[in-house]
Parts: sequence; C-alpha cells; structure tokens
Amino acid sequence: MTSLAPVLDALDAGLDASLTRLADLVRIPSISTDPAYAAECRRAAEWLVADLKEIGFEASVRDTTGHPMVVAHHEGPAGTPHVLFYGHYDVQPVDPLNMWHDDPFDMKVKEVAPGRKVLTGRGTADDKGQLMTFVEACRAYKKVHGALPCRITILFEGEEESGSPSLKPFLEAHAKELKADFALVCDTGMWDRDTPAISTALRGLVGEEITVKAADRDLHSGAYGGAAANPIRILAKVLAAVHDDNGRVTIPGFYDGVEETPSQILKQWESLGLTAEEFLGEIGLSIPSGEKGRSVLELIWARPTAEFNGIIGGYTGKGFKTVIAAEASAKVSFRLVHKQDPDKIRDAFRAFVRERIPADCSVEFHGHGGSPAIQLSYDSPFLSKAKNALSDEWPKPAVMIAMGGSIPIVGDFQTYLGMESLLVGYGLDDDRIHSPNEKYELSSFHKGQRSWARILDALAK
Amino acid sequence: MTSLAPVLDALDAGLDASLTRLADLVRIPSISTDPAYAAECRRAAEWLVADLKEIGFEASVRDTTGHPMVVAHHEGPAGTPHVLFYGHYDVQPVDPLNMWHDDPFDMKVKEVAPGRKVLTGRGTADDKGQLMTFVEACRAYKKVHGALPCRITILFEGEEESGSPSLKPFLEAHAKELKADFALVCDTGMWDRDTPAISTALRGLVGEEITVKAADRDLHSGAYGGAAANPIRILAKVLAAVHDDNGRVTIPGFYDGVEETPSQILKQWESLGLTAEEFLGEIGLSIPSGEKGRSVLELIWARPTAEFNGIIGGYTGKGFKTVIAAEASAKVSFRLVHKQDPDKIRDAFRAFVRERIPADCSVEFHGHGGSPAIQLSYDSPFLSKAKNALSDEWPKPAVMIAMGGSIPIVGDFQTYLGMESLLVGYGLDDDRIHSPNEKYELSSFHKGQRSWARILDALAK
Repeated sequence: MTSLAPVLDALDAGLDASLTRLADLVRIPSISTDPAYAAECRRAAEWLVADLKEIGFEASVRDTTGHPMVVAHHEGPAGTPHVLFYGHYDVQPVDPLNMWHDDPFDMKVKEVAPGRKVLTGRGTADDKGQLMTFVEACRAYKKVHGALPCRITILFEGEEESGSPSLKPFLEAHAKELKADFALVCDTGMWDRDTPAISTALRGLVGEEITVKAADRDLHSGAYGGAAANPIRILAKVLAAVHDDNGRVTIPGFYDGVEETPSQILKQWESLGLTAEEFLGEIGLSIPSGEKGRSVLELIWARPTAEFNGIIGGYTGKGFKTVIAAEASAKVSFRLVHKQDPDKIRDAFRAFVRERIPADCSVEFHGHGGSPAIQLSYDSPFLSKAKNALSDEWPKPAVMIAMGGSIPIVGDFQTYLGMESLLVGYGLDDDRIHSPNEKYELSSFHKGQRSWARILDALAK
Repeated sequence: MTSLAPVLDALDAGLDASLTRLADLVRIPSISTDPAYAAECRRAAEWLVADLKEIGFEASVRDTTGHPMVVAHHEGPAGTPHVLFYGHYDVQPVDPLNMWHDDPFDMKVKEVAPGRKVLTGRGTADDKGQLMTFVEACRAYKKVHGALPCRITILFEGEEESGSPSLKPFLEAHAKELKADFALVCDTGMWDRDTPAISTALRGLVGEEITVKAADRDLHSGAYGGAAANPIRILAKVLAAVHDDNGRVTIPGFYDGVEETPSQILKQWESLGLTAEEFLGEIGLSIPSGEKGRSVLELIWARPTAEFNGIIGGYTGKGFKTVIAAEASAKVSFRLVHKQDPDKIRDAFRAFVRERIPADCSVEFHGHGGSPAIQLSYDSPFLSKAKNALSDEWPKPAVMIAMGGSIPIVGDFQTYLGMESLLVGYGLDDDRIHSPNEKYELSSFHKGQRSWARILDALAK
C-alpha cells in the first residue's frame, strides 16, 4: 500500500520532462504500413525498451515476422492484481504532407485557446501519447515509492495500423507469459473534454459478400429485357427485405441473444444529452435510420445492425449502356451486441438470401470475418474502482459508454488469453487521428498520467 | 405495270455476277470507327454510286462532316408509291483477326452443309449483303423492263457502326429531297432460315441515372451504423419497389398508352413455337422474369419493362471495408411500347423515387435519351402487300414480329421525314455480325433479291 498524493505531485513536477520524452518518441517515424520505415519501427520499439528498463521493467524487443513487439514485466506486492497494459507504437502514414501546418514528427506544444494547449504531430493521440500516459504513471510511482502498486505486464505492438498480422500468433505463443487478471487498453477516448469514459461494450462484426448470378453472360436489355432475370433487381429485392419499415432487421433469429440495456445505463446515456439532431447534424443528416423508439446512443452502442457497405453490378461508367448484367454483388455487414452468435447470424442471413433467389439463378457467398460482441459486466469490481478513480481526477464523473465498432485486440485477449479488458483512454473526437494535423490535448496527456496513477492505486486496494 | 416472272428469272441467271459485285464491295475495308479507314469508306461510297449510276440511278456521293452519304434517285410510273430504301455501307472492325478462318475482306462462297452455302466476310450480313439484295432487284427490273416498278430513292449511310453522327443533320437538311411515302429498312432479319419476317414494332427507351445522397461524407459503419441513413439501403428499397411480385411495374401511370396486342398477332407469335425454356435456356436461364401470364415473345416485343442496367455504391474492391457510403447510384432504363410517353414515364419515375427518399437525404437525376416506341399499324396496306410477297418466295409464310430494342433510323425517319418504315431483311441470328467469321446465307442473298423484286412488284400494284 502506497500513498497516491506524492505520485500525483511527481507527475505534475515532471510534466516538462515527460513532454520531452514523448517528443523523442514522436520524432521516430514508425509508419508500419510502409516497408521503407521498417527500421524506424524497430527504433521506436528499442526506444521504448530502453525507457522501460530505465524505469525498472524487465523489457525486451521481441521479433515477429513483421514489426517487433515490446514486452515488459514488473513485479507488484503480493495480493494485488496482475494487469496487462496494451498500446501500439506504430503510426499512420502522414500524406498528404502539404496539409500539415507543422512537421508531423516534430512535436509542438501549442496554445490553441486561453488555457488550452495541444501537442501536435503524428502519433500524439494515436497511440504514442496515450501509451506514454501509462508509462509516465509507472515512472512516477517507482520514483516516489521505489515500487509499483501492482504487478504489471506491458505489451506494445508495432502493427496496429497495418492489420496486426503478427499479434494472434504472438499471443498464442506467449499466452503463459502474457496472461494477467485483466487488460488495460488505452486506445480509446473520453466522452468530452471534461468527462472521462470507460468503454464497457464493443459491437461484434459479421461480414458477408453476396453475388447473385443470373444469365451466363451480359445481355442486351432490348433483346432480353422483360424476359431474362436481372441480378440487380434480385439483389435489390433481397437487400430491401432485410429491414422492415421500422428499421428492424427481419432475418429470422437475428435478435436472439440481444438483451435490453439496463435502465440505469440508458438513463446515464440519456444524461449525456446527445440529441439525434446533434449527432447526425454533424454529418449532414437528422433522422435516425435504425429501430424506431431508441436513442442514437442506444442504436450505435447497444443495438445490432445490418449495413450495406458496397454494391456493384452492370454498367457503372459514364453515360448509359442498355445491358442486363450476368451478376451483381453486395457487401453486407452486421454489427452484433451482447450474446448474438456470429455463425448463427451468418447462416440465418444466407438462408434468408437463398429463399429470395429465383430457381434459375444462383447466389455465392464469401464470408469476411466474424467476431462476437464484447460486453463487460456492469457489476465488475475493477470497473467501479476505475470509474471512481477517473471521477476523482476530472471535472465531471466518469461515464460508462460503449463503442459502435470493434477493437480487435479486446477480442484477441479474450480468445487467446481468456482475459477481459478495461478500455480507458483520453483521446477526443477532434484529435484528427489518421489525418493531417493530429493532436493530443495537453490536459489529456497530463491528467491522463494522473488518471492512471489513480486507477493503479485503486486497483491495488 | 410490269411482269414479275422474267425479273425473277433474270435474278436467278445473274446470281454469279451479283456475287462478284458483292465480293468487290466486301473487299473495300470500310471500317467507320477507325479514322485510318476514312479513305476506304469514301471508296465504298464511290463504288456504290458508280454501280447505281450503271443501273440508271441519278446517284451521288454527299459529303458530311464524317463519312459521306450515298443518295440515288430513280423515277417510277405515275400513281405508284415513292419508297426510300435505307442501308449502310460501313462495317465493324475485324479484330481479333486471328479468330477469323478466312480473310475477312476476301469473300468466299462455302458449302457448310449439303445444299447450304454461305458467303463469308465482314459486312456480308451487316449490311453490304443485305443492301445489295435491293440493288440487284432494281438492276434486274431495269434490265428486263427498262424501268423500275415504282419511284425509288436510296440512302446509304457510312456511319451506322459509329453512332451515325451525321445522319440527323443530313436528314434535316435534305428532308425535301429524301421524303418518300415510306421507307424500306433492310437492317433486320428473318424469324428462321425458312420464315421471312417483317418487324412491325420497336420498343422505345427512357434512360435515367439516379444518385441517392445521404451523409456529407463516407462514414465508419461502427461509429454510425444503425443511426445514419445508408444510401445503398435507400436505393435498394426504391429499386425493389419498382416491380410487384408478378413482375408488373408499379410506377403510377406506367402502363398508360400500353395496348393489348391483337389476339391474331399473339396467335401468330404462339405459332412460332418458341418456348421460354428454349429462349432463356440458350443464356442459362429458364423462368421468365417479366409480367406473369405472358409469353416470352410478348414480353420482349409488346410489353414495357423497367430494367436496372447498373448500380454502384460504397466499397466495391477486394476484401471488406466497414463504410457507410455518402451516396449510391443506379442506371435504370424503361423499354416503351405503343403510345407510352417517354416524358411522362420519366416524370412518373422521378416522383416515384422522390417519394421514397427520407427527408434528410436527397436524390439527383440525370436523364439519358428518351424515344417513344414505334408501332406500325397492323392494317397498313403496304404491310399486307409485303407480307404476301415474302410468303410467295419462302418455304413458310411471312410473320409479323417485333423487336425488343430500338433501331434509331426508324425513329429518325419518323421525326425528320414524317415517314413510317417497313423493316425487312434476310439476316439470321447466327450470322455473327460484329464478330469474327461473319457470314450471310447464299439463300438470304439470292432469295432476298427475289423477295425485293416481289415486294416492289406488289407495292406498285
């Protein structure tokens, strides 16, 4: 048991030094998607290993068939939980470079409004700045107390922005070494500048590509129109049947395993005060397109969807061609929640489509991924500890939110390490990650460090 | 009034000479789409003018901004009709050349089965062989009787295979010179080897491109799926609503002006014995997709359609992208029959679409062409004369058929010259026009000449 206050003081006192370290890490252009930067990725990994060793971690660069992993271990007092902290040191490419106001690899601290400063540069928010908030919290703990409040394993990946090809084999091969009581994943954000958030649910995903085939060649619509089956018409009928007039998915069994969100959670989301007009207005829309009678936050956080991500068939160039295509195809994806079963959803969808294909036509399916939803139990003790710790640091109490999309690492930790994740991060929606002029709030970086100190302290108790 | 029998005899006796002339014309590579062959196109026009002059026509090459026209005039006995004969001397390119069994410009007469000979080469069927059947009939008439049975104007075009850019201006500029009582258009075919045909109807066409716009940018389906409007879903709903479960178009007013085909015509079509299995089997299908309870011939010849010729939206590359597109679009065309009004159909369709677009989304339309159907009155006297004349020549009586597609020249004659067309030709479905190894049956060429002699004789009476 250690005292928190001096750790927080140390973080305040060490802010400038921590900014220098972050600037050093940002300076390494560790772009994982471009093979030309492979050596820079390794350099970032080595930089992190050196820094973690300096703090007192047993740290090493671990080779993979792609960019290396960083793994670090530090003991904690007996009786405290063992946590795995995950982040990634690779960054997105920076083009178009001419859209940047500053050199993307030369981090600047800029005052953008009275009392509000931001750190600019590629990776400041995604994910170098975020992961360093945790490293700085550990550093301060060690400095003040000579120890960490609990046992910590760190895993930094170098391929998050390029599909994480080495991650699953690495988790599988090192499951024993990496397994902890739970994971802390920092690749997420706050509700708003004043309100910290813990993501407790992530929707799952099933992707399907369907190709409807009719005649054995493209036909002239003058010669065959009105007699020959048109695959675009068949496909349109299939897709149009997927939702009813109330936006509900009509595929039999689709809602099996979907639970109603507890009313206190719905109330919490309601209290965030985000209207449909506000949420959709930002993208030029105003009317929620999903199930009627549910708020936009419930729709994107706690309800499953069927979306059509792409469609193509026939002549799509300039002008006109009076053709009846031989085939047409669509990419369809389902966002899953709670206990929906990806395999059952896929099977039900395929049966639903097959039923609607005329006897002289055919359909082919191609599956793309399938992952169940992730749902943290709302009554988990470490969840309430983290929530209270965050609420102590920020102007407003922490909220439990969900994410409409998936974060693959969370599913992978569950699959390969049998471990749940607590998703806490300090990014903001306007951080422009993956875009020119990425930034991270100075308050995110500073109060983020303090938040981790508080969370580690709370978890250890 | 002249006697027909000696003209037919002269055609029989002159067959070899007529084949030599056709071979001379085929030898000129008058490919209109390739500027490298411009001089050859002119040479073909000059060859035709010389030949028509030899027969006794007042003939000339007429310059246009593209390839020249051939116009020829010949007087006829007072009280006989004035007919305009139309054909085209230009041909399709010949590539891939290695697919040809013989030089495409060196016409051969080949025996392909006992008693069945074909003429091989580019343009033998489309359209040099066809137009020469008419020229040879005129030649024989003049030779035997020193006169033609009626007044004849000939128009040969050199841009039919390249979109006829000069045709409309030429018709407009020379309307007075070219206007006749009706036109004979030879660019069509027989029902089968033994059954001549007159095309009495051509479907019209309305093309529309619609683009549904939702959010002002592409969205991540994780972040917005279930809340934001998806333009592919909206487009699918619109297209799926165009046909009811019986294949009937649901657009209000769509069938205004559509007439039921006279029962004797339906019976004639029925007697042709073409089953849906046979017609569709050839393209790998078996079930008619149009209005239920109508034969395939009625569907493609006498019923209007709505066809979807192309559709595109969202991510259509390899793999998967969980995007909600900002827009999606489709190309839609309507084949029109009888008195359907292209403008009204277009307006009705646009209203139909607009009604189905959510209030926060929009739709844009782009019109592509619009032409009404062409329908010869079944009781026209020159139609029955031509039908009887054809029936006298061939093993089986002539049938009145229709065409699912449009032949622009027929509409142009109606628009610019106020003149109906009688469509008679001797091509067969297996003539491979536009493809390697184009051929024309020797029987088409020989009996085609005799058929025109009979038709001219009948029209003059």
